[in-house]
Amino acid sequence: MIQKPSIPKGTRDFGPAEMVRRDYIFDIIKNVFRRFGYRQIETPSLENLSTLLGKYGEEGDKLLFKVLNSGDAFSNVDFSGNYSSNALALKVCEKGLRYDLTVPFARFVVQHQNELSFPFKRYQIQPVWRADRPQKGRYREFYQCDVDVIGSRSLLNELELVQMVEMVFSMLKINVCIKINNRKILSGLAEICGNPEKLVDITVAIDKIDKIGLESVKEELAEKGLDGKAISIIEPVLTLQGSNRDKIAKIRELLAPSEIGTKGVEEVEVLFNLIENADIKPRVELDLSLARGLNYYTGAIFEVKALDFEIGSICGGGRYDDLTGIFGLPNMSGVGISFGADRIYDVLNGLNLFPDNVADSAVVLFSNMGDKELQYAISVAKDLREAGLNCEIYPDNTKLKKQFEYADRKSIPFFAIVGENEISDNSVTLKHLGTGDQKLINRKDLVSHLQEFIDGQSKL
Amino acid sequence: MIQKPSIPKGTRDFGPAEMVRRDYIFDIIKNVFRRFGYRQIETPSLENLSTLLGKYGEEGDKLLFKVLNSGDAFSNVDFSGNYSSNALALKVCEKGLRYDLTVPFARFVVQHQNELSFPFKRYQIQPVWRADRPQKGRYREFYQCDVDVIGSRSLLNELELVQMVEMVFSMLKINVCIKINNRKILSGLAEICGNPEKLVDITVAIDKIDKIGLESVKEELAEKGLDGKAISIIEPVLTLQGSNRDKIAKIRELLAPSEIGTKGVEEVEVLFNLIENADIKPRVELDLSLARGLNYYTGAIFEVKALDFEIGSICGGGRYDDLTGIFGLPNMSGVGISFGADRIYDVLNGLNLFPDNVADSAVVLFSNMGDKELQYAISVAKDLREAGLNCEIYPDNTKLKKQFEYADRKSIPFFAIVGENEISDNSVTLKHLGTGDQKLINRKDLVSHLQEFIDGQSKL
Repeated sequence: MIQKPSIPKGTRDFGPAEMVRRDYIFDIIKNVFRRFGYRQIETPSLENLSTLLGKYGEEGDKLLFKVLNSGDAFSNVDFSGNYSSNALALKVCEKGLRYDLTVPFARFVVQHQNELSFPFKRYQIQPVWRADRPQKGRYREFYQCDVDVIGSRSLLNELELVQMVEMVFSMLKINVCIKINNRKILSGLAEICGNPEKLVDITVAIDKIDKIGLESVKEELAEKGLDGKAISIIEPVLTLQGSNRDKIAKIRELLAPSEIGTKGVEEVEVLFNLIENADIKPRVELDLSLARGLNYYTGAIFEVKALDFEIGSICGGGRYDDLTGIFGLPNMSGVGISFGADRIYDVLNGLNLFPDNVADSAVVLFSNMGDKELQYAISVAKDLREAGLNCEIYPDNTKLKKQFEYADRKSIPFFAIVGENEISDNSVTLKHLGTGDQKLINRKDLVSHLQEFIDGQSKL
Repeated sequence: MIQKPSIPKGTRDFGPAEMVRRDYIFDIIKNVFRRFGYRQIETPSLENLSTLLGKYGEEGDKLLFKVLNSGDAFSNVDFSGNYSSNALALKVCEKGLRYDLTVPFARFVVQHQNELSFPFKRYQIQPVWRADRPQKGRYREFYQCDVDVIGSRSLLNELELVQMVEMVFSMLKINVCIKINNRKILSGLAEICGNPEKLVDITVAIDKIDKIGLESVKEELAEKGLDGKAISIIEPVLTLQGSNRDKIAKIRELLAPSEIGTKGVEEVEVLFNLIENADIKPRVELDLSLARGLNYYTGAIFEVKALDFEIGSICGGGRYDDLTGIFGLPNMSGVGISFGADRIYDVLNGLNLFPDNVADSAVVLFSNMGDKELQYAISVAKDLREAGLNCEIYPDNTKLKKQFEYADRKSIPFFAIVGENEISDNSVTLKHLGTGDQKLINRKDLVSHLQEFIDGQSKL
């Protein structure tokens, strides 16, 4: 039976060229995380559903991929029981696929609390799975790159996250703007307009201002039951102009009656002072409409946008004061951000910012022109590999044209012809496939010759 | 509701120390794969069950993790239908978790055949999932490291796999023995003893000789219906002594009447000649009892054992002539091997072969002694990071003892005290936590001082 092969919708294969580009991003991100003392962990793809359920809201629960119990999953199910589909699912599935890296991280910290030293700084780069409706740029399996510190309330952590964002995007050559807000300011705002219980409604509405404009936000606030007076308190906050310092001064005045709001302003002021002293190059902007996954952030909120490419945020995060409480370890404050690898890939691709030199291709392909010639090629290739160079020998003795084409398609820069003449000369004829230049090179000079080429490439 | 957190049985968390050690193995393996022109791909964790089912035998089908369809998985199930549990599972699950890397690779090759250039050389390092009964050293989620070439029948590929094995284990400093056999020799053997249809029974029996001994193998052959004459033909093959050349000479004689057997002997002879000329350092042994996953191998069979540590094979593979036929692309011959990362980890751990220098820890922790001191530390740390050094600042202004302990637990070699004196001196007091040595170092000399230490470490 012949099957036409395919993969599940919303999933992807990564070929060699895509892998090199993806790893270019991951390697830069990892290096920066390590530069600040963060260390890598991995958690299992499968978590108990009890760990995952209820952590992502009702909608999130629906998007979890559930894994059928192994063995006879249905043996204990009473099908006459009139169960809901959801109840049935929970009877036959105990495990689910990781939905994000934050909840598994919280689970990890609680489970291993006695082995860890706090503050615990970790990064994690692994795929997550969501049963979202697949669409352009949205996948059912995708990588997240998270960096978090837990067990410290110091705003130095917030500064260092900003410094990491700066360093990552500077290395990637992407111009960005960093937006910062503080959940306590939003709480204060809800308080002083007399609607502390409408915090979520207010922030959901003002978060949309970039998309729908001020008037529509005001309409939405009215729909949610805010009266004209409340809206007139919020409106000037949304249209605040001036430097970050100006904004801080104005919002401090406005929020003076609110204790939590004042605390938020203080935190923002300390952080912006740290940022100013640390000489951060990208624009950092206090954006009082920024909310993001408000449900668990309790302090700083971050978002990073690419300046020269139209796409959503490419990095974001914030502080959460009680992430591990749900697993039995209360009062552990943490702060972290997540880099969106797929969107960063799209930005680099769209702006043509991926470097040209494909480091994983071999530097030279040796020809295969018969048994004796092959033996010689094996021996020369061995020298190169022991010197740390990547090379290939064409495995079959076919037409040279076919061998050339192979090198070309794999972007191998050099083709080494090894025939009878070269063997008797103890040399190879090295042809650069880009320029067509060709010269006879003594075997003993081959490593240094190719190394010189590679060093030249990496300087480009 | 407080939950006591745990992870599904058979799965693991990897903490920072384990990650460094695992990546030490992966990095060496990847570098060697690239040295020979292999390039990395990744396939989705989720495959259609139609891709996976029937590829791993009946037992394998049972060990597949099936993923419940998203949305209302049970809406179309008629529970009065008296379905078997297995039939029900297939009604509510269309996807499954990857069981190995070979079948997804075959699917990848067929699906992308028009984009690939053949021979296609790929490596793949990803987790796989099996619903095996968890036990010591056996996990339900574990990494495989596969390297395969498809689209070439040249025995150069077999040689290069042996060379890669040599290079990987030489870099890891593990002494190994490489065992080689050829499926065609086993087929020839079954032919000349008059039981070609009993090939699987014969090889299953002789594969056990190391464990159960010659007499028990003979008993099992008799149980499987081989008569005394057939057994007397097989017995001398199992007890063949002498050099690989001697063994090849004897088996060539014995298998002369069998066409396929003679072909197998020829292949083995060519490969051993290539191996001899390539000056492979580890012992390479023709082992005529070696069978391994015989079901799809059609030519060379490989297995690698650690010499100084008691554990099963740490690497194995072989040639398969029609791996992609099931997906509609016939006659693509491929050969590959798989490195067992978990077992290699155990060998390195057991023989204490992991290198000491933990490259991912920061080289220095700066003290936190107040706002002014912190500002200075931030500025010095920025210099270090821009010079490529990994460092940390203790985030909170607490007792120095606590800050020292943090550095110690994270194996950070240096602690930098930055107090008022150091600020006015434009310096830091650098204390080596191992020796207790402490000296005042000018800020401008700090990078070179630490870099010298790191360079010295990496030479150890």
